[in-house]
Amino acid sequence: MKHKIQIKSPATIANLVCGFDILGLAVEEPYDIMTMELSDQPGLEIIHLDEYQLTTIPAENVAGGALLAMLEDVKDAPGLKLTIDKKIKPGSGLGSSAASAAGAVMAASKLLQQTFTEEDLVRYAMFGEKVASGVKHADNITPCLLGGITLIRSILPIDIVKLNSPELHITIVHPQIEVKTSDARQILKKEVQLKNAIKQWGNIAGLVAGFMKEDYDLIGRSLEDVIIEPIRSILIPGFDEVKALSKEAGALGGGISGSGPSIFMLSKDKNTAIHVETAMKDVYNRIGIDYKTYVTRLNKEGIKIIE
Amino acid sequence: MKHKIQIKSPATIANLVCGFDILGLAVEEPYDIMTMELSDQPGLEIIHLDEYQLTTIPAENVAGGALLAMLEDVKDAPGLKLTIDKKIKPGSGLGSSAASAAGAVMAASKLLQQTFTEEDLVRYAMFGEKVASGVKHADNITPCLLGGITLIRSILPIDIVKLNSPELHITIVHPQIEVKTSDARQILKKEVQLKNAIKQWGNIAGLVAGFMKEDYDLIGRSLEDVIIEPIRSILIPGFDEVKALSKEAGALGGGISGSGPSIFMLSKDKNTAIHVETAMKDVYNRIGIDYKTYVTRLNKEGIKIIE
Repeated sequence: MKHKIQIKSPATIANLVCGFDILGLAVEEPYDIMTMELSDQPGLEIIHLDEYQLTTIPAENVAGGALLAMLEDVKDAPGLKLTIDKKIKPGSGLGSSAASAAGAVMAASKLLQQTFTEEDLVRYAMFGEKVASGVKHADNITPCLLGGITLIRSILPIDIVKLNSPELHITIVHPQIEVKTSDARQILKKEVQLKNAIKQWGNIAGLVAGFMKEDYDLIGRSLEDVIIEPIRSILIPGFDEVKALSKEAGALGGGISGSGPSIFMLSKDKNTAIHVETAMKDVYNRIGIDYKTYVTRLNKEGIKIIE
Repeated sequence: MKHKIQIKSPATIANLVCGFDILGLAVEEPYDIMTMELSDQPGLEIIHLDEYQLTTIPAENVAGGALLAMLEDVKDAPGLKLTIDKKIKPGSGLGSSAASAAGAVMAASKLLQQTFTEEDLVRYAMFGEKVASGVKHADNITPCLLGGITLIRSILPIDIVKLNSPELHITIVHPQIEVKTSDARQILKKEVQLKNAIKQWGNIAGLVAGFMKEDYDLIGRSLEDVIIEPIRSILIPGFDEVKALSKEAGALGGGISGSGPSIFMLSKDKNTAIHVETAMKDVYNRIGIDYKTYVTRLNKEGIKIIE
């Protein structure tokens, strides 16, 4: 048995425009680095190397909550020490909590040589999401664990579908403002017009078909959200402009990453993704809001073991 | 130039459970037989060989309405005589009007050697649907014209996506009661709960992915409608029982065909489809409602030219 494992746990983009609560994808960057070691001390020790001042009390920590759920099902588990170097900023809308939760259970299952199913791992990791936001959701966890583009057809019972993952380049801008997931949820209307719901599911069907057929035009046409984005985008200054200029720069389309404030755009090639980055920078430079950008790719593997 | 063309225009199943207003498929049976001939008389003559007492005044006839829309774009069109032997009962929920409209425009475009796009043909045929129900919809017309399983991502502008069509056997029961499309539309609520809309689009995404991956289990799990079926099925006596017993007999799943009253069930093989037929017959024999059943297959070609 190895004594130590080190992994890269990637950022993820949930919701995917029309795929609210059901679709997600993993990106190559940013990612957290997590190291798990067997320890002589019983129980679970968590160390954060980053500056985000996250609690290290296991039951209150996202990675800890997920791990504790898993360890309940492991007989005679040894002591574990988890060191997290978080690069995905909490609250960015890039699946920071999912990276912690999914990374922790993946690392532990490998280190302890447990043969859990993908569904088991998702279920354990969801306990971490519950610590983070009070809600068990799987649309970041699943692409983080499995890579590529994933569909959560149903959460109860959990039904995960891995979709085909065409080559996609992804540009992300994270304006340095705070949008709380709970606020972003609260402003949504509990009822939607049937005619808008029909538009939305036409687009979702088109987007899934586009991914499966690797039909980039269809992907682009389907990246339209008539229900969530019109409401949530109000919380993100510059959103409409970023979207319009990114499409002018050649992006297939995109929208709010998770519940924001990050915005993502999909492109067919790297050059376009770089042009999109320039367009995004221009918007926030003009508005005068600090930001961080990433030009990255679809991550087809999910969590990667470094050593 | 040929002087005559004869085609088989197939029945279609719209809505496909969770795919309300966007998904449809064509079946091998039943089908209408339509014969179109060049005529010395200018204009359009329509003859019905069936017993349904449909009007033969071109502008008020479904096939006629579609044809007249098309002929507006044809220079120096000759006189045409269209003979329709309708086997798909109007009001069955099996796309009877779509078969007339799509069949008419397809036959005429071939006979007159016009090179319209698929989208053009759908657009013309929708004028026939408007004659039939007052609403231009394309979810029966498209699979009738193209065959297989089709997605209408958007109606304005029209965006048609042909999905992969796995081998599917289809059992249909048509209880001989009347459900008017307009009534079936009227009882729907104009607003739906967001949480139900999310369930629905998870199922639609799953269904599309299931068709693309030929994953029959996924198709079965995704054939769930939490929005339309609970309301519309009230109009169809025996619906819940037909569904439950069909699944017990091995069907993947199914639901209301179009706006009813026909009910369809998908199966992986012919034997199961036959067992499902028995289950359906048992229900309506017990209730004492006349019915007609079909055991058929997914029609991958759509309209077929006989001669």
